[in-house]
Amino acid sequence: MRGMMMQFPLTLTHILERGGHIFPAVEIASRLPLMADSCATPQSYSPAEFHRYTYREFYGRARQVTAALRRAGLRPGDRVGTLMWNHYAHLESYFGIPAAGGVTHTLNLRLHPDELTYIINHAEDRFLIVDDVLLPLLAQFRTNIKPERVIVVHHNPRAAGDDHEDYEDFIRGAGECAYAELDENDAAALCYTSGTTGKPKGVLYSHRALALHSLALCLADSFAISMNDTVLPAMSMFHANAWGVPFASIMAGSRLLLPSRYVDAESLLNLLEAEQVTFSGGVPTVWSAVAEMLERHPGRWKLRSEGVRIVIAGSACPESLIRRLDQHGIRIMQPWGLTETSPIATVSLLKPSMQRLDRDEQYRLRAHQGMPVPFVELRVIDDADRQCPWDGEAMGEVQVRGPWIAERYYQRPDEDEKWTADGWFRTGDVATINAEGFIHIVDRTKDLIKSGGEWISSVDVENAIVGHPAVREAAVIAVPHPKWAERPLAAIVLRDGARLDVENLRSFLLQRFAKWQLPDDFVVVDELPHTSTGKLLKTELRKRFAEWHWKAAAGN
Amino acid sequence: MRGMMMQFPLTLTHILERGGHIFPAVEIASRLPLMADSCATPQSYSPAEFHRYTYREFYGRARQVTAALRRAGLRPGDRVGTLMWNHYAHLESYFGIPAAGGVTHTLNLRLHPDELTYIINHAEDRFLIVDDVLLPLLAQFRTNIKPERVIVVHHNPRAAGDDHEDYEDFIRGAGECAYAELDENDAAALCYTSGTTGKPKGVLYSHRALALHSLALCLADSFAISMNDTVLPAMSMFHANAWGVPFASIMAGSRLLLPSRYVDAESLLNLLEAEQVTFSGGVPTVWSAVAEMLERHPGRWKLRSEGVRIVIAGSACPESLIRRLDQHGIRIMQPWGLTETSPIATVSLLKPSMQRLDRDEQYRLRAHQGMPVPFVELRVIDDADRQCPWDGEAMGEVQVRGPWIAERYYQRPDEDEKWTADGWFRTGDVATINAEGFIHIVDRTKDLIKSGGEWISSVDVENAIVGHPAVREAAVIAVPHPKWAERPLAAIVLRDGARLDVENLRSFLLQRFAKWQLPDDFVVVDELPHTSTGKLLKTELRKRFAEWHWKAAAGN
Repeated sequence: MRGMMMQFPLTLTHILERGGHIFPAVEIASRLPLMADSCATPQSYSPAEFHRYTYREFYGRARQVTAALRRAGLRPGDRVGTLMWNHYAHLESYFGIPAAGGVTHTLNLRLHPDELTYIINHAEDRFLIVDDVLLPLLAQFRTNIKPERVIVVHHNPRAAGDDHEDYEDFIRGAGECAYAELDENDAAALCYTSGTTGKPKGVLYSHRALALHSLALCLADSFAISMNDTVLPAMSMFHANAWGVPFASIMAGSRLLLPSRYVDAESLLNLLEAEQVTFSGGVPTVWSAVAEMLERHPGRWKLRSEGVRIVIAGSACPESLIRRLDQHGIRIMQPWGLTETSPIATVSLLKPSMQRLDRDEQYRLRAHQGMPVPFVELRVIDDADRQCPWDGEAMGEVQVRGPWIAERYYQRPDEDEKWTADGWFRTGDVATINAEGFIHIVDRTKDLIKSGGEWISSVDVENAIVGHPAVREAAVIAVPHPKWAERPLAAIVLRDGARLDVENLRSFLLQRFAKWQLPDDFVVVDELPHTSTGKLLKTELRKRFAEWHWKAAAGN
Repeated sequence: MRGMMMQFPLTLTHILERGGHIFPAVEIASRLPLMADSCATPQSYSPAEFHRYTYREFYGRARQVTAALRRAGLRPGDRVGTLMWNHYAHLESYFGIPAAGGVTHTLNLRLHPDELTYIINHAEDRFLIVDDVLLPLLAQFRTNIKPERVIVVHHNPRAAGDDHEDYEDFIRGAGECAYAELDENDAAALCYTSGTTGKPKGVLYSHRALALHSLALCLADSFAISMNDTVLPAMSMFHANAWGVPFASIMAGSRLLLPSRYVDAESLLNLLEAEQVTFSGGVPTVWSAVAEMLERHPGRWKLRSEGVRIVIAGSACPESLIRRLDQHGIRIMQPWGLTETSPIATVSLLKPSMQRLDRDEQYRLRAHQGMPVPFVELRVIDDADRQCPWDGEAMGEVQVRGPWIAERYYQRPDEDEKWTADGWFRTGDVATINAEGFIHIVDRTKDLIKSGGEWISSVDVENAIVGHPAVREAAVIAVPHPKWAERPLAAIVLRDGARLDVENLRSFLLQRFAKWQLPDDFVVVDELPHTSTGKLLKTELRKRFAEWHWKAAAGN
């Protein structure tokens, strides 16, 4: 028997309507992406470099985008590519495109032009909306793609030779906005994951998934995004929709602060202070730079006395970073997820029973990835395809399912083996799970190190190494070894002016690890290779160190 | 184009699984409903009168209910009636019945036996689960209903002649629990509204509606129900599922405290203090008794220093009550809704801009019904069927729609006119709506008073009258009048030992109302008639005062 409740669809148009009508006076401020030569130092900024308007204006303009796209002949399901930084026009696309029945396809501007070409052609983007500052990037592959129209958001005076259609002209006088007839399962957004191997794969989000994910982010026991927040997304809007935070913020009626391209430590700290930010987030490297900056300049910034909530994800957040930022009132909460999970699947909030543990244990747990948010289910599966016990020790691959987890990649049947026969998504992340349902990601499946039959977590060792005062960043990889099959090797970037004392670092690590778990060698490098999303590119490192000649008596 | 996300259903079984696995150690404590003669005073209680267990045990037993019902031959969609107070066994029914594919039909034990007969027969309840203390009530109509089995929860020693099947026997050894194959739109619960006119009408909730409503209650800007809460539902589990709070609490992992039948002021205060309750709720009369008790016994109870959050609904909460309880650290938040809206449609949380207003204005707004929660949409429609402007002045009927709003009543096509042709539910509540999307309910459609062509809100006047120190409760009704068509009359219940000084009360009211808006006469009565859900029964009062002879020079 069916219940007798309204079939009211969960769509982004409801969120847009809500924002426009319930929170008309709330501010959305965007720092503009300016040409390099019109902005002396990225850290200093003037009020003129900001675009400020209210939800009422945002609502009207997002609807103009909808009307303009329909006038331009957008058909339901058409993809519209966006090549933009974090700002108001990108936010208008987030809502205006899906409201017209289209799919917002956010393009990762850090990818190689060949990859962007592949992605845009694979998605068959019919229209492109591009920041003027990114036209030089577009020029590198423009002849290899075939969008029907390219619309440019001009933040700067038009450059010589720029004869593109202007965004303001495109949306002006577009007439009455009529939303598309939407089913909640219709596609709303598309995001390609830039894995470390293989071609990028598209995740096609539905309205329903993004709407439910927005509710999940506003739960008291999750990000708790609220109308009382000033939200500063320092994660890119082209990375899993800035983790869904813009959708959730508009639903909650939060004041929004979009930093454009300026997420260096000094710019962020200036914004945190000047705008009294209450909630932000980003990848660990961004916030570790903030920690260093705060330590180098004690007292220079005065943040909110009530503290700032920060979510750090993208890669595991070292416990030492949580401790360092705590001292400045920046309280880190670590979620976990992937592009395929919209992305939030777990959060590392402490349960009341954990809040009574001693401080060290609390920090240890906060550096884990935590428990699933409502309606996400997870399981940990070992090599023999059995469920691992919830004992905090057995390791296996995390598999997830839920209403905002991808069911397949967009037009990539060759990747279907990423899903199990019974419908769970294989994340490729290896974790333990404890009796409280807390997962602790120890590695990517392919990055685990097997030394003499025993597994070593490269992530755990890396996070311990960056806890040493001399170290800025570290990568631990498996290197072939004649006796132990594989042994860990650490590549380390030092902090400015620091030098490496290997024996001191070893003693430091021995407080937490057995001797056999430590890297046999520590190599200082100038920088580590990263993917375009800021993750360590270990394939590259493994290639570089494949022929390493072990100096030490290995594995002793 | 459809998105490519998993078709993961939103069901109560997910919430049950989540509770059992992620929060196994959290406590659920229930005060037991004891026979009147084994419980000297309801206010005093001993540890023996409590049933305490963990989510792990609750989970196991709810699943035993599922298994037992399937063993008993429950078919998908079968209704199972529950005639119980607020306690663990009722909670097990909330989850165990829908997990078996059945529908939990909560029965309002305050109804007249004839009404219960009508409801049980209309719903065709196949099984009944009944508290032993309610067997005398059941006996009054048992021969008029035909459930296949009656299962009794024995909290007390079995009474002579009680040969009913025992709940513990029913669920014992029921074998492996297998959930029904559920679609999220399947029915999960049924609740009859006991309106002041006509036969009760059934609202048939789907899994999807209750799941989404649970997410809505856990939002930071709503009830914010959290794993950090100790939740005490002082609203009945047979009134719109205790406003959905038990479902939301299990999803969040809150500690739960179920008070059974003991919601008198002293019992509640004892629980608030002893169990360090953080969140509770109930109808205004319950909490106005708490306020009186706290005022009569200063310092007797020591509540949490961080305060207690209370949601008050069922009827409008007078501003004076919000002010009085604030002084004791009991912070009232007023939601609004009806059985047909699951029930939460709006909440009266202050926006940041409102938090900067002066205190009086803040209190005034907190006594309004507030703004819609996400995914609920509302509009205010005047007599001419036009949308009222959002100006805080124009009055009209509130109409709502959303994923947890009823689409029709269960098997009552004669009531279909409660929905508009374009799919909105007519709530029958008259309100204004301001530019911030805040509604202020001024009356039920049928309770508005039309004096000389002008509308007077009976609710506004009532709420002002109870702000007077001599008054416990008040009802304002329209009484026919030769000159003005209708004029307001107030029926008043005084506080213990107080006496009515009409002139003093008039001056008090003139601080907020025009003279013509005041009742012409004030009549002191011993008590006011109520519906079984605690709402004023104005039809009854109107009948009683229909022939009223106006003493005063009316409407002057």
